[in-house]
Formats: sequence, structure tokens, C-alpha cells
Amino acid sequence: MQMRETIIENGLISMLCEGFTRSPLQVNELNKSDAEIVSLPGTKMHLAFTTDNIVEEIESGLYDDPYLIGWMTVIVNASDIAAVGAEPLGLLLSETLSDKYEPAFIEEIQRGISDACKEAGFFVLGGDTNFSHSAQFGAAAMGLITDNNIITREGCEAGDIVYLSGSAGIGSAYAFAKLSGFVEVPVYKPEPRIAHGKIIRQFASCCMDTSDGFLSTLDQLMRINKKGFLVNSLPAEYISGDAIEMSSKYGLSPLLMLAGQHGEFELIFTVPPDSESEFLKAAELSGWKPLKIGVVTEERSIKISDGNNFLCPDTTRLRNLLHETKGDLSLYMRRLTEIFAGPVLTEF
Amino acid sequence: MQMRETIIENGLISMLCEGFTRSPLQVNELNKSDAEIVSLPGTKMHLAFTTDNIVEEIESGLYDDPYLIGWMTVIVNASDIAAVGAEPLGLLLSETLSDKYEPAFIEEIQRGISDACKEAGFFVLGGDTNFSHSAQFGAAAMGLITDNNIITREGCEAGDIVYLSGSAGIGSAYAFAKLSGFVEVPVYKPEPRIAHGKIIRQFASCCMDTSDGFLSTLDQLMRINKKGFLVNSLPAEYISGDAIEMSSKYGLSPLLMLAGQHGEFELIFTVPPDSESEFLKAAELSGWKPLKIGVVTEERSIKISDGNNFLCPDTTRLRNLLHETKGDLSLYMRRLTEIFAGPVLTEF
Repeated sequence: MQMRETIIENGLISMLCEGFTRSPLQVNELNKSDAEIVSLPGTKMHLAFTTDNIVEEIESGLYDDPYLIGWMTVIVNASDIAAVGAEPLGLLLSETLSDKYEPAFIEEIQRGISDACKEAGFFVLGGDTNFSHSAQFGAAAMGLITDNNIITREGCEAGDIVYLSGSAGIGSAYAFAKLSGFVEVPVYKPEPRIAHGKIIRQFASCCMDTSDGFLSTLDQLMRINKKGFLVNSLPAEYISGDAIEMSSKYGLSPLLMLAGQHGEFELIFTVPPDSESEFLKAAELSGWKPLKIGVVTEERSIKISDGNNFLCPDTTRLRNLLHETKGDLSLYMRRLTEIFAGPVLTEF
Repeated sequence: MQMRETIIENGLISMLCEGFTRSPLQVNELNKSDAEIVSLPGTKMHLAFTTDNIVEEIESGLYDDPYLIGWMTVIVNASDIAAVGAEPLGLLLSETLSDKYEPAFIEEIQRGISDACKEAGFFVLGGDTNFSHSAQFGAAAMGLITDNNIITREGCEAGDIVYLSGSAGIGSAYAFAKLSGFVEVPVYKPEPRIAHGKIIRQFASCCMDTSDGFLSTLDQLMRINKKGFLVNSLPAEYISGDAIEMSSKYGLSPLLMLAGQHGEFELIFTVPPDSESEFLKAAELSGWKPLKIGVVTEERSIKISDGNNFLCPDTTRLRNLLHETKGDLSLYMRRLTEIFAGPVLTEF
């Protein structure tokens, strides 16, 4: 059973948090929400609070374009606020600048931050700037939930319908092309899903962003909810066209684009059947077409249709692969390709 | 005139924030508050929000004790929340762990974090963990201000009385001893000033923590308020005993302990004369004895009594010294010692 095996990252987080006392105001449990949710004393409101940093992405060369570094610094945080359907309140930057950065490079980072903030409806409130030989960029974001209607990663039931806010796979396609040194690298510029998140919060039973890739997200939702997922849409219906094109050009399985752990920051969420028509009406009104991809199952497994069969990718192995390969990204990609070159049916 | 000269750090922050749009909800202006203050829509409440990271302190070896690293990760943030007199709401950690850290070392960091949180009344809500060859630790903290009574770094008038929450100088004494390789290093473990901050907010006209050292704090308050400070207490009345002992042992000026930019995280604040007796009553009730150190002046200068004369340290030069010496801390300390070995009367 997949559930018996441990995700190394989850274990590390539990170890780090072991000695900490939980806040009586905190609504969500450890790891069970994209953003931490705190009830605001004396009101019916809640605050959403998150922090995320770009470290390995810069060190590995995955992000070397300064505008993208700035853009992603905001997006990785805005995405957590979107996943809990909160209204943006503000953002704090943590910039550790390299001594080697030219002023023009720093300006481009700031331009990326500024543009992403405008797109996501966030304002930079302040921040902290440091210098190091090793650059890293991060932020903390705050959002407001004006009522008691909370959505986290937990809460789906068997029979709930699984949706995706937009097509998946471009994150891994970008990473694969960039780190392999392909001449053509697909455009990677995830959009903030704040408006979608607010609609999702009204109708869905759980929600999580695909920051760690599509399959890792499903795996985490499986563990938290003790349910499974049957993804019965055809790959072409929910994997991005650019990602499918790249995979066919290089003879790779399109499922590889779902398996890589560099995500596209879309939202995976589940809608109870009796809320579906209302949800779809609200989505349509906002001009958004969410992608219906499958259904929540009682059986704790992840089954993905490749058009002919249902495959059961070993998501535990996929999620631990980065740790196993000790950050050696070439080895990581080779292993990942091997897994999807052979049979991926680890169980049925 | 000191005011005409520019602080390099302030210039950098302005440059970084140039393209950003300010939030209509933000109460404080850029750089004019220790924590960013945001009004909470539909209520009379405000949120205080801050982020601070420990980077150079680790890289330089200033903090090599893991418990201290953890303790300070919390304190640097709690201190900003204290300076605006907010009630702690929660804390998010950003830990960039070195691959070289042993589990026991990481456990000690977490113990320091946990202890400081208990002391400051903060709970860890969540966080982000990364790996790099260059470790850094940071946090973002959130606090609640339950009314419209806001305190920032701005607002003092000539004649207001200058107070210090507790003795100054131990931060620089510790840094001086640690980086010089002295056998005896004074104990450095700043306490969170959350309770003091709440009292200060009721009575004071401005407040700022001494995270960058005593004189840098006065200099920043001078620039923001366009006022000056006359510190007419004797050094022994407000410089920590350990710091004075160390300076006399090594033949250093005790004023050096006020000039170094590694602070002790006390609060410098100003109380209008007609609020002073009420303030002192409230402080006494809480068992706290704030240190009265001087008065706000119309003249924009910083004058410090050394017991015999009033000295006017060149705080612009002091604050830019770290940038001028390009992070070479031995050179920084040598220059600092030279300044205080010769006459420090740059003007009168």
C-alpha cells in the first residue's frame, strides 16, 4: 500500500515542528492547508498567512532570469493564499542579494515582483534585505477570509468531483527543458489564481495548489483525506499543449509532465456532486472554465488514465526521488524518465 | 550637517521599493515603523506584520551556537512586533538548512525557537524549509492592534522625554568579543519586549527597537522625525554592566558599545512630558523600570554625555561603516575603534 510508506519531506516537517506548541487560534492542522489559517479574536474573520522562498530553484539554475525570479517570489506565496480562497492583504519580501548581482539584474527582479503583485492584487508592505554569496528570494503573504467558511487540503468525500483550475504540466516541462539544456524552453509564467480561489472556497470540499507538481499534490491530498483519486480525463484534456508537444518531440511520456516536482501553481480541488452545478455557474459568470478531471474514491490509490489503461504511478517513490538523488537534478531526471519508460503499474 | 548625508541602507531600500505601489490599507510610510501596520477592513483593528532574517550573522560566525540562532530567529521578529505594541498572533519560519548540519544541531535550533516563542507569547503557525550550502534562518511575524491607537517611529516633539526599555550595549559587546576571538564572551540573549511595547503604545509618541545598535537607532529616529536627541544620562546608568566591564578591561570607550551595529533589541521611545507620570505608573504596576536617558531637541543632532562633555558622534559615518568596509568585520571593528580612540566631536 502506498499509504504505509513515508514521504521524507513530511517526516522532516514533523521533526522540525515536534517541540512547538500549536496556537489555539489556528484552524488548520500541520501540513493540512496551503496557508495557515488563524481565527481573528472578537470577529468572524480569519487570517491566512504563508511564507515561501526560492532557494534551490536559483542555486540549480532553474530560475536564472531575474524577471522570473521576481515573478515567482510573489506567485509561490500568492498561490497559497489563493488555495484557501482568501482576499490578499499584503506581502513582505525577504531578499538575500548576491554580492555579484548587477543593479540592472536587481531592477529586473523588482520589476517581476511588482508585475506579479499587480496581477495578484497584492501590495508590498515592506521586507528585509540581506547580502550573501548565495542569493535567495522569498516572501510572506497575508490574506483575509471574511467569514467562517474555511477551505483547506482536508475535507473531500468519495464521489466528490475533482477539478483543476487550469492545465497542468508546464512546470515540469519547463524544468525538464531548462535543466536538460534544450534549445527550446517552453514559456513558464504561472498566473495567480486568487479570483478562482475565492469561488472555490464557496463550493469545494478541499483544495491544494500544484506547486510541487500534479501527482505530488494528489498524493498529499490522498494521505491527508485518506481517500483516493481516479483521474479519468484524457491527458490532452488537462495537460498543457506546450507540455504535450515537448514530450512528444523528445519521445517522453506526457505523464512525466505530471510527475515532475516543479509545478505550475494551478489549484486541484474537489466539489461535492450536489454543489457542482452552482459551482459551474459561478465559474462561468467569472469567465473561467475549470477542468473536470476525475473523481474521489474510497480506495486509497491514484489511478490515471493514459487513454487506454489506468496507470498507478508510485507517487511515494516520485515524491521521495529528489531526496534519494540528493539534489542531483540530472540523476533525478534520469530516474524519473526511467520510471515512465518502463511499466508504471505498481499496483492495481 | 548630519542630515544632508545619506544612509546607504536607506537608499538601497528606497531603490528596491521604487516601483512598488503602496497599499491603501497601510498606515505607516516606508521605513517609518519597525513593523508594517495595516488597517483591517470593516473593523477598528490593525495588523502588524514583519519579517526578518539571520544571514550575515551566521555567515560571519557571529552566531555559531545553534540555540542562539533559533532564539534570535524569533527575537528579531518579536522585537518589531513589540515596537508597535501589538499582541502576538503568530509566526512563520523560513529555514534554509545547510547540508552539513547534524540532526543534533538542528534540534538545538528548534529548541531555541521554541523557547523564544514561549517567552514572547508567539506560536509557530507553519513555515518553509529549504536546503542550501549557505544556511539562513528567518521568520515572519503577525500581531494584532485592537484599536486605532498606533505607534510608529514617527511622532516625537521637542521636549518629549527619551526612554530605553532596558540597558544598551550588550549586543555590540558580544559582537566585539566574539569576532575578536576574546576568551570571555559576554552572555547575549535578548529578551522579547512584548509586554513593555503594549504599555509604550498607550503613552509614547514614537518607538523603535535597537536591533541595529543604540546610536543607529537614534540616528534613524532623528532622520524620520527631523528632531535631535540629547542623551544626558551618565553611561553607567544605561549601558549594561557587562558591556562597560568588557570595554574597560580592553581599554575601549564604553561609547563603542553604543556605536556598534549589532544591537540588544531594547526599545527606544519618547514620552510627552504630560503623559510621563501616567506612563511611569503603568510601568511600575507591571514591575518594569524603564531607563530615562534624555530629551528630544529641536536641533537635529545627537549629543551624548560621557560624564564630562557632550559628544556628537558622526552617526552617518557609523551607519555607513559596514557598507564602506564591504562586510570585512575585522576592518569594521578596527575603524570603529579608531573613531572612538580619537575625538568624536564632529560638530557642536
